[in-house]
Parts: sequence; C-alpha cells; structure tokens
Amino acid sequence: MPDTIPVPLTLEGSTVLHQMCRFDRSAWLQIDNWHRERIVGEAMAALQPMETASKDGRAIASALYSLVGHKGDLMLVHFRQSVEDVHRAELALAHIELSGYLQSTHSYLSVVELGLYESSAKTYAQLAEQKLEPHSPEWQARIREVIERQTSAMAPRLFPEIPPAKYICFYPMDRRRGEAKNWYQEPMAERQRMMHDHGMIGRRYADSVKQIITGSIGFDDWEWGVDLFADDPLIFKKLIYEMRFDEVSAVYALFGSFYVGIRVRAGDIGRLLNGELP
Amino acid sequence: MPDTIPVPLTLEGSTVLHQMCRFDRSAWLQIDNWHRERIVGEAMAALQPMETASKDGRAIASALYSLVGHKGDLMLVHFRQSVEDVHRAELALAHIELSGYLQSTHSYLSVVELGLYESSAKTYAQLAEQKLEPHSPEWQARIREVIERQTSAMAPRLFPEIPPAKYICFYPMDRRRGEAKNWYQEPMAERQRMMHDHGMIGRRYADSVKQIITGSIGFDDWEWGVDLFADDPLIFKKLIYEMRFDEVSAVYALFGSFYVGIRVRAGDIGRLLNGELP
Amino acid sequence: MPDTIPVPLTLEGSTVLHQMCRFDRSAWLQIDNWHRERIVGEAMAALQPMETASKDGRAIASALYSLVGHKGDLMLVHFRQSVEDVHRAELALAHIELSGYLQSTHSYLSVVELGLYESSAKTYAQLAEQKLEPHSPEWQARIREVIERQTSAMAPRLFPEIPPAKYICFYPMDRRRGEAKNWYQEPMAERQRMMHDHGMIGRRYADSVKQIITGSIGFDDWEWGVDLFADDPLIFKKLIYEMRFDEVSAVYALFGSFYVGIRVRAGDIGRLLNGELP
Amino acid sequence: MPDTIPVPLTLEGSTVLHQMCRFDRSAWLQIDNWHRERIVGEAMAALQPMETASKDGRAIASALYSLVGHKGDLMLVHFRQSVEDVHRAELALAHIELSGYLQSTHSYLSVVELGLYESSAKTYAQLAEQKLEPHSPEWQARIREVIERQTSAMAPRLFPEIPPAKYICFYPMDRRRGEAKNWYQEPMAERQRMMHDHGMIGRRYADSVKQIITGSIGFDDWEWGVDLFADDPLIFKKLIYEMRFDEVSAVYALFGSFYVGIRVRAGDIGRLLNGELP
Amino acid sequence: MPDTIPVPLTLEGSTVLHQMCRFDRSAWLQIDNWHRERIVGEAMAALQPMETASKDGRAIASALYSLVGHKGDLMLVHFRQSVEDVHRAELALAHIELSGYLQSTHSYLSVVELGLYESSAKTYAQLAEQKLEPHSPEWQARIREVIERQTSAMAPRLFPEIPPAKYICFYPMDRRRGEAKNWYQEPMAERQRMMHDHGMIGRRYADSVKQIITGSIGFDDWEWGVDLFADDPLIFKKLIYEMRFDEVSAVYALFGSFYVGIRVRAGDIGRLLNGELP
Repeated sequence: MPDTIPVPLTLEGSTVLHQMCRFDRSAWLQIDNWHRERIVGEAMAALQPMETASKDGRAIASALYSLVGHKGDLMLVHFRQSVEDVHRAELALAHIELSGYLQSTHSYLSVVELGLYESSAKTYAQLAEQKLEPHSPEWQARIREVIERQTSAMAPRLFPEIPPAKYICFYPMDRRRGEAKNWYQEPMAERQRMMHDHGMIGRRYADSVKQIITGSIGFDDWEWGVDLFADDPLIFKKLIYEMRFDEVSAVYALFGSFYVGIRVRAGDIGRLLNGELP
Repeated sequence: MPDTIPVPLTLEGSTVLHQMCRFDRSAWLQIDNWHRERIVGEAMAALQPMETASKDGRAIASALYSLVGHKGDLMLVHFRQSVEDVHRAELALAHIELSGYLQSTHSYLSVVELGLYESSAKTYAQLAEQKLEPHSPEWQARIREVIERQTSAMAPRLFPEIPPAKYICFYPMDRRRGEAKNWYQEPMAERQRMMHDHGMIGRRYADSVKQIITGSIGFDDWEWGVDLFADDPLIFKKLIYEMRFDEVSAVYALFGSFYVGIRVRAGDIGRLLNGELP
Repeated sequence: MPDTIPVPLTLEGSTVLHQMCRFDRSAWLQIDNWHRERIVGEAMAALQPMETASKDGRAIASALYSLVGHKGDLMLVHFRQSVEDVHRAELALAHIELSGYLQSTHSYLSVVELGLYESSAKTYAQLAEQKLEPHSPEWQARIREVIERQTSAMAPRLFPEIPPAKYICFYPMDRRRGEAKNWYQEPMAERQRMMHDHGMIGRRYADSVKQIITGSIGFDDWEWGVDLFADDPLIFKKLIYEMRFDEVSAVYALFGSFYVGIRVRAGDIGRLLNGELP
Repeated sequence: MPDTIPVPLTLEGSTVLHQMCRFDRSAWLQIDNWHRERIVGEAMAALQPMETASKDGRAIASALYSLVGHKGDLMLVHFRQSVEDVHRAELALAHIELSGYLQSTHSYLSVVELGLYESSAKTYAQLAEQKLEPHSPEWQARIREVIERQTSAMAPRLFPEIPPAKYICFYPMDRRRGEAKNWYQEPMAERQRMMHDHGMIGRRYADSVKQIITGSIGFDDWEWGVDLFADDPLIFKKLIYEMRFDEVSAVYALFGSFYVGIRVRAGDIGRLLNGELP
Repeated sequence: MPDTIPVPLTLEGSTVLHQMCRFDRSAWLQIDNWHRERIVGEAMAALQPMETASKDGRAIASALYSLVGHKGDLMLVHFRQSVEDVHRAELALAHIELSGYLQSTHSYLSVVELGLYESSAKTYAQLAEQKLEPHSPEWQARIREVIERQTSAMAPRLFPEIPPAKYICFYPMDRRRGEAKNWYQEPMAERQRMMHDHGMIGRRYADSVKQIITGSIGFDDWEWGVDLFADDPLIFKKLIYEMRFDEVSAVYALFGSFYVGIRVRAGDIGRLLNGELP
C-alpha cells in the first residue's frame, strides 16, 4: 500500500546544460593560420567571461572539457539561473565562428537538485500530528516555509561553482520502474533508508570527488544527471563500482551513456584545437 | 476476467502535428543580409497568420518554439481540424525558402483527446440496466448521443487555443503492457480509480500549468502525446515528479523523449535565427 | 503441453512492398521549371500504369501516398504476384529521374495472408479421426486440397485491389514471445478463440475501414504488416484503441512504427511535389 | 543443477562473410556510358572467378544477390577457408572502382557450424563410463578424435558450395538467456530433445530449401547466422512460421533483421546496375 | 541479505582506449600516389614508435588492426599510464593527415583490471577477526597495504605488453541486474565461486588465447571490456561458446558488439590502405 505522501521534498538550484559536440578537424586544418587565430580569439572572448561570471552574488559559470573517445570532442557545461539563461548561452555560442566547425552530438538539460528525504519524513509527520490536511492551503504554506528555509541554508550547494578538478564524468540515470522492482512503489521509509546508505558511501569519497546531482524529470530523457569531478579519474570507477553493490543502485539504478572529459581553460582552447592537451 | 465493455469512451478534437527541426546555422551565416531578410520576411508572412487563425469560430493555430539542446532548434506545433489540414500546413511550410535551412529531426501526429472514464462507466451501466445488447444498433445510437452531447459541452477543451505560456514541454507516452502489469487487462473500475487519482494531482497544479493530452494510437509510435505549458519550467519537473509516484504513472506509464522549448512569436523569428532569444 | 499440430493453415496471395522515402525539396526547388516538368512527366508515365495494372485477370497495382510527419514524404505500396515482381517495380522506379531526389528511409516486404484458424482446427480433427499420420504423404495431400480449395474461394481477398480510400495507416507487428506470455506456446484452441473475438471487433468497423493483413515471417523484421484504409483517419485510432483491450492485442501484440499517409493519384504527383496537396 | 559437460561438440567449416551495401544510383547515372562499362567490366572480372573458385578441392565461392527493400541494394556472400581469406576478399573488392558507388550498410562474420548434440551425449557418456576425467589429456585426445572423424565425414556440409537457388533469406539469431527461460541453463538432454524435434521440421522441407547454419559467437553480434536458399521464397515464410511453434524457437529463439535477395550472376551485374533484374 | 562488504578489491593498471574508424577509400583513391606516400610516411612515423614505447620500464604500446566487416576498417588499441595519456595519443593521431580520411565509428575507454575475489574474502575475514571496523582508518590502511602488495606482484599483468597474436576479438559486457537475477545482489561467496569456475575454463585455453580484462564502470557505457588475442580465431568462438554455459555467463553476462581484427604492423599500413592484407 502506498504512502499518504510518497513524494520527497526537493530543492532546486541552478539550471544546467551539458553540450557535447564533434569538432570538424579536417575543415579546421584546411583554413589559414590567421583565420584559425581569429576564430580562437573570438571563442576565447566568448568563453572566458563565462568561466568566472556571477550574478546577484551567485556563480553562473560555464566550463569546457575535452572528451575522450568518439562520443564527442568537446563538452561545455553551463550553470545558469534559468532555462532561459542556459538557452541564451547556447544561442550565443551557436553564433561564434567556431560553431561552424562543431556538430552537436548530444546534450542534457537538468536542474541542480537536493532531495530532502530526512526532512520530508519529519515534516510530513509533524504536519500529520497537527492534523493538517495534506495539500490544504495551510499545509502547503508550511511546506513552502520548509523549502524556503532549506533553500537558503543550502544555497552554496544549490548554486555551486564548477569544481576546478581536472576530470569530469557525466552520466544520466533513472530509477527502475520494473514489473517486480519499482522504486516509485517502495514505501518512503524504505527509500529514505536506501538513500541514506547510498549517501554514506559518497561521504567516504568526499575528499577526492565532488558530486553534483541534477534532476531532469520533465526536462530530458532520463530522471537525473550526475556530474563527478576529480583529479584522479580512477576515483570515478572506484566510487561507482562500490555504489553498484548498494541496494539502491544494484536494484533500482539504470544508467545511460558515460562521458569522461578533461578540463580545458577557455584561454587554452587554441592549443586544444591545434591538437595539444594543455 | 475482462470487463464486458472495457473500452472507455473518448472525445476527439483538433488534430495536432509537432515538427522538430534542426537549423543549419552555418549555411545561414554564409548568405547575405538582404537574403536573410527576404527569407525571414517570407517565413513571418507564412507563420504569423497561423498564430491567430480560426475557422468556423474555432482556433486553428500554430506556435513556434526555440528548443533547448541538441534534439532540434525549432519546434512548430500545429492545431488543425483534420489530418489533411495539418499535412497542408506541413507542405506549405516545406515550400518557404527557410525550409532549405531546416532539417526535420522528429515529428508527432496526434489528436486532442478527452477520456471519459466516469461517464463511460455510468453510461455502460445504464444501458446494461435497460437490457440493451452491447454494440446493437440501439446501443450504438445511445453511445453516439453521449459522445455528441459531451463533444459540444467540451468543445473549448477539444479545440483549444494554444496557451500563451513562455515554456512548452512535450513528450509521448504509452500505458505499459508488461507480462505481469498490463494496463489493458486491468478492470475498467480500477483504471477509472487510478485515472481519477491522477487527475487530482493535475488539478492542484492547474493554476500554473496547462495540459493538453492528445491520443496517437494508430497515428504515431506512442499511444499518447502530452503538452504542458507554463511560465515557470520548474513546474514541469515538480508536476511530473509528483505524478511519477502515482500508481497509474509509477506502474503503467512508459515515456519517450522530452522536448523543452521557449515560445517565440512569428514576428520575432528573425531575431531568433540571428542568435537572439526575443 | 503443446498441440499435436499447433500451426494454423495460412493462405498466401499477393506479394507486397511498402517503400517510404524522403523527398529532397531543396534540390528540387533549385532546378528549372522545365526540368521539374520533365521529371514529373516521366514519373507519371511510370506510376500511372501501375495504378490500374492487372495480369491474368488479377490486380497488380501500386499506390502513392503523401506521408504525414518526419518518417518520410512519400510512400509507395506495390501489390504484385511474386517477390521478383515487387523487386522489378522497385528497380524500375529507382531508374526514373525523380529517384535522384528521393532517399529511401524504410521499406517493408510481406505477403497477403489469411490465417485459417477455424478450418485448420476442423481439418486437423477430421484427418486425426481418419487416423492419418500428420505429415504423411496422404495427410499432406489432403491439406494441400484444403489450401487449394480455399485459395480459389478467397482469391478476391488474397489478390486484392488497393482500396481507393483517402487515408492509409501502415504498421508492422509481432505476437509476443515473452518469458511468461508466449503466443506460440498457447494451445491452438485458445489462439482460435482469441482470434475469433478479435475478428468480431474488426467486423463492426467493416463499413468504414478496409484491412489487409500481410505475413512477413522470413521476409522482414516483424511477423505481420497491417494496412488500414479509410476516408476518415479517426477510424484508425478508434479501431486500434478498441482492439488494444482485446486479449490477443492487450497481451500478445507488439507494434512497430505507424505510417499515416494521404492517397495521391499518380496524375497529381506534380502538384504534390510542388507543395500542394491535391 | 547443470550438466557435468553441458557444451555440445561442434564442427567448424568455411568462414563466411555477408556484406550488405547500398548502391549510389544517382552518382552512377551521372557518369558516362563508357565509364560505367569500364566499372562493370572490372567488377565482373573480380567477381566471376570468385563464383566458382576452389582451393585444395574445396569450394571457396562468393555469390551476389540483389536485395529487396531499403536495407541495401546488393549483398555479397563469401565462403572461404579462414577469417583472413574472407577479409582478403573484402579488401580486394573495396579496391575495385565500383566500390566508390557502394556504401556498406551491414555485414555478418560467421563460420559454418554443425552442432553434434547426439554424438556429444554418446561420447561424453562413453568417456564417463571409461572413468576418464573430463578435460584430462586423454579425455581431450578422445574428443579430438571424434571431432576429426566427424569433420572428415561431414566435409561436404562443412565446406559447402553456395546453393544455386534463385532466392536467399539471411538472418542472425540468439538463444534466449532470460531471467526465467535460459537456453544455456537447460540440461543437455532437454536441449538435445528440442534440437531433434526442430531438425525434424527442417527435414520435411529439405526438398525445397537448403539451409546453412553458421556460428558467430565471438565473431559477430548474434550467436548464429542462418542462410536459407530456395527457388520459391514463400517456402522461407512457411518453414520459419512452422518452426516458430516449435519449443526451441517459440521459447528460446531471438531474431535479428531478415535480408531477402535474388541471385544475380556476376556476368549480369551490369544489367542489374542499369536497373534490370536479369 | 547483503554481505557486510560486498565489493571485491580490484587492482587497476594501464588505461586503454580502443578507437574504431572507417577509412574513406574513395577519397584516398582520388589523390596522387606521391600524396598517399606522404600521408603513409607520416602515419608510420607516428605509429611505429607507439608500437614499442615504454616509460619507467613499463610498456605503453599501441597496436593497429584491420577490422573485418562494416563496423569499421581500422582499430587502434592504446595502452597508457593514465586517461590523460590515452587522450594525448588520441589527439596526436587526430592531427596527422591520415585522420582526414578516417571517421570515428566507435571507441571504448577502460582500465586494465584484476578482480581479487579470493584475497578479498580472505582479507575481509582477517580484518573482521581482528575486530577492525570496516572503512575505519586502520581498516583502510590495511586494505591499501593489500592492494599495494598485490599491485607490485601483478605488475606484468596490470601493465601488459600487447600480445603479438595475429587476431584480436574485443567486446564490452555487463553483469546482469535483472529483476530476478541480479549479480550485484548475489552474496560475495557465491560470486567468488562462480568467478572461480569461470576462471578454470579460461585456464584450459591459456596456451592458445591471451585475455586482457579492462574495467569501464564510470569510464564507458558497459561495465567491462574484454580483449582476446589468438593466432587462430576459431579459438575465440570455442572459448566464448564454452563459457556461455558457465553459470556466471549463462545467467549474468550481457554482451555488446564484437569487433574482430587482424594485426597490422605500423610499417605495413601503406600496404593495407592500398588494399593488401600484409
């Protein structure tokens, strides 16, 4: 039998767009040096301010990665304050001359998300004790208060700077809705327990890897996106392998494609396009 | 054991075509300004009348969206009175010069649909009480009456205007026909109960999101298409996430790709093509 | 436990090839008027005789449809007397100049099929009563007799004319072979009962929709192809939706892509290519 | 509980490569007649010797088919004595001028295989009676003897000529490894029984269809490839349909794409490329 | 109930990148001989040192294979000391002129991995006997010791030379996480037993095939990559077929695409590009 309120509260922060693209190196190598320099200069002028921008005291950064393998050559990750703002960044970059040498191979639209399993359980229980009817105006007002309070408290994690780590690993994931095993049919207390155990693994890796979870239900083809940032990419493998034995991953996680990239500063894009890893 | 009449009555309204396409910006940036202006002028002349058209007092509108991410650059949504009419719109637009710069990436053909679970149950029960043989001429005549009466009453929802909201979220979906969980094998009363609970969630979001459900069985590759319209796109995420815990979605819903776009008025298409989000 | 003879007898008629293709409108619009007229003239000369051809008193027709959406622009459906003959039609059309502007996006090869569930059951029972060993020469001779007799009787349905309806809906399908629900493991009597119920729904729609079932086991990637022809395309949706609740579809049917097109006479192909729906 | 030795012995013969490709007819039609004749002449000179070649008294033939539908225009099937030899054939053909007009759409690499269910069971039982430790040197020597003896006896089936039939039907297949139904977990005696029943169906069709089974575990993306050769393509449909009700197919067979082609002699390739089915 | 520590210890060695690409033979055949020679010369100069390179006394080699079939023409396999280093190799090769004739069709990023099922079980048991709290600093220090000791001992297998065998077979694989059969939910002792049985099969083939297992969780779309090297490619088939009946493969292995290639020395690349298999 389902919970009365099975939906955990979530906090939303920055809107995030991942753009993966292929670089047409043959065309690039056929143009003159001065022309390449002009294109690189314009691309640097467009990307550099995005690396360090902020608005209302919050980071609204973009970062560039050189992707390993055939899934793309470059990946841009944009953190902004709205869907409109990530789309403006997308359009702005589509109009620099370098874009004529890039072909979009994939993208991912999502929003930084913190799931509040523990305080959801507590809040729902309190409101039930106080005999507040779920979804009644008063109940909703109390929920809004919790969300606002937590959003303020969590602002640094909701509107994060892009970690300066050398490597990124991005992948999308779903919670399984199988015929026998269905995350969304599990009681909230069970989900809370499994998410807690899952979080304990992450905590042990906190020194060597930063993780940003984004929600994408209603935004893209999977339910969540995961970005991991580390200076040693073997940590990606160790962390995800250990998690795979964890109940919530072993039974309920379905994964999309994995993208591994190496951070390249906007100022180094010319060297990268000319075949050198800065 | 199956119901005697397991099929809920449905009302059909406008035929809808979604067209997603990629814009060849490289080619666009290589042509002269006057040429781009001519193309924009022609596109505006074709699209503007479609935004506000009506026929026999009913809206037959089209709307343009700028898509976020790699699934396409533009999405056109056409509401018309027949499959023939949406196809005429498709052919007309294929012949403006701008189409030479667009490449079709996806589309979806469907029909505005209202499922009448509650009145189906009532009607079938009444006709059974009156000992009318299901599918007999008299039974069919009575069903036709119900459908005609309801179609008139529901006309504004069956032949809707396109909501003026800033954001759209479109996705197709199926009801699961698994080996153990099969929507089409559930008794009608169970389906009615689940759809009712589902509707209650939507109702709580009615102020901030408009939803148009279209049926596409026999028309396209999924059973239904869903369009959500809102001024705040986070509502898409919150609504769909909450619904995912609802029995009918948790167990029986299978989802295709999600398309998120920002409304652009036909008069602003030139600014959009030149890289500015109006 | 499986039936002794679980395989229903089938009758085979015309071989059918569906060809879906994209029309390169940009290239088309760049050639001169006189050139387009020449191409249209040649295409009409090739297609018009195919619309009405017959051989040995049997129709061997082809029909042209304008497809709605991105899955293709044109669909040609060829009914012929053999695989060789549909392939000759394919090759002949590949050599007219218009083909230089068409790109094949999909196709489907199948054979008109009538499944004889009822007379199979009867025949197998009679031969068993007569103590004929299944697959013995005498048994096979008696089966051949039944098939020949029925093939003559059913000739008009086995070698049909293409219905003149305005709309076509084509889709391929399989019978499910799941781990728990497996059509090919159901006893013949059960399959016969389900197919009979299924047929009763079709019969109620017989006035407004014509259906041609083709078998494609060993010919293409699904087991059957279904063509529906109607003047009102909403009938496709109503019929298939009603059937989806039917046991044989609800549990055992798996569907591929749906193609919806509008009939265009060969004589009108020029108008269609120039953007007008005749 | 699994068998002690669950793996049936298999005999391997010719290595086989199927090559499917699309023919760029537009480019072909744009070149001069003398140029086409030169290309055809070179292609004939390359292909004709392959149709009838032999080495050490064994056929090492290639055959050309005109494919029906959009999956490709031509299919080449090469039977050779090693992977290296089929790859040499592939490279040799890639360097004739015609290849500039062909685009590879699919291929399949496999090895003619005969599964020895019956003699495996017998041999394993004998060696067990003789108390030989499975996989011990002596046990392996005895197995090698069986394989060598059978390979000699079966040489004509292991290194076959390509049947001269007018039609070919090729498809790849797997044995299901589902969570509930898993071929590789079935006891060997059960598999032997099912394969025997399966073979009995094939035997009844032996007069009208030749079948060559190739194994592709470790060679390509499915476990087996099946080639059927017949003068009447309806036999493909009848045979495969009848087999589908057989336990081993109904429950354990998973199928890939089906390719149907019409044999064209190398000497007729010019007529085929010019749009005529010889 | 899950194990206390269900995750087996693993050792990581060289980072490996597989690059599959198509060769544009048409373009190649259109350029002058001297031009081809220049391109070949540059490619040889780039690839030859990679075949035999070493760093700090460890092999950091690359090897070239000619792929059979349509999945690609060439496959490069790079073994390096880090993700950064394989990416540098990728970028370096992207900048030689030959790359203008190559199109990336697939790739795979992974790390040589040895799973220590047996010593994990022993170590975890010892540490538990000594009452060390799992994941406590002391526990982790002891685990690190084990890993360091084993990494030294296993260095030749962790940082291997590329076997000189004539044939390669590469494929990615997952362990199944089904609703009923889930590798990651099996107790560690069961997994250890199954992996041990699996290893026994491999051992019997050790003389004729070399196997390198790479882990790719967090690196690419499957969990592991497998490279087999042999002089007789039939061994690939025999080994994988025998393994398929093994419990760990039969029930828990899911396979991606198989790539079969023939080793070509860098010095022979010119002959290969000109259509000759050296």
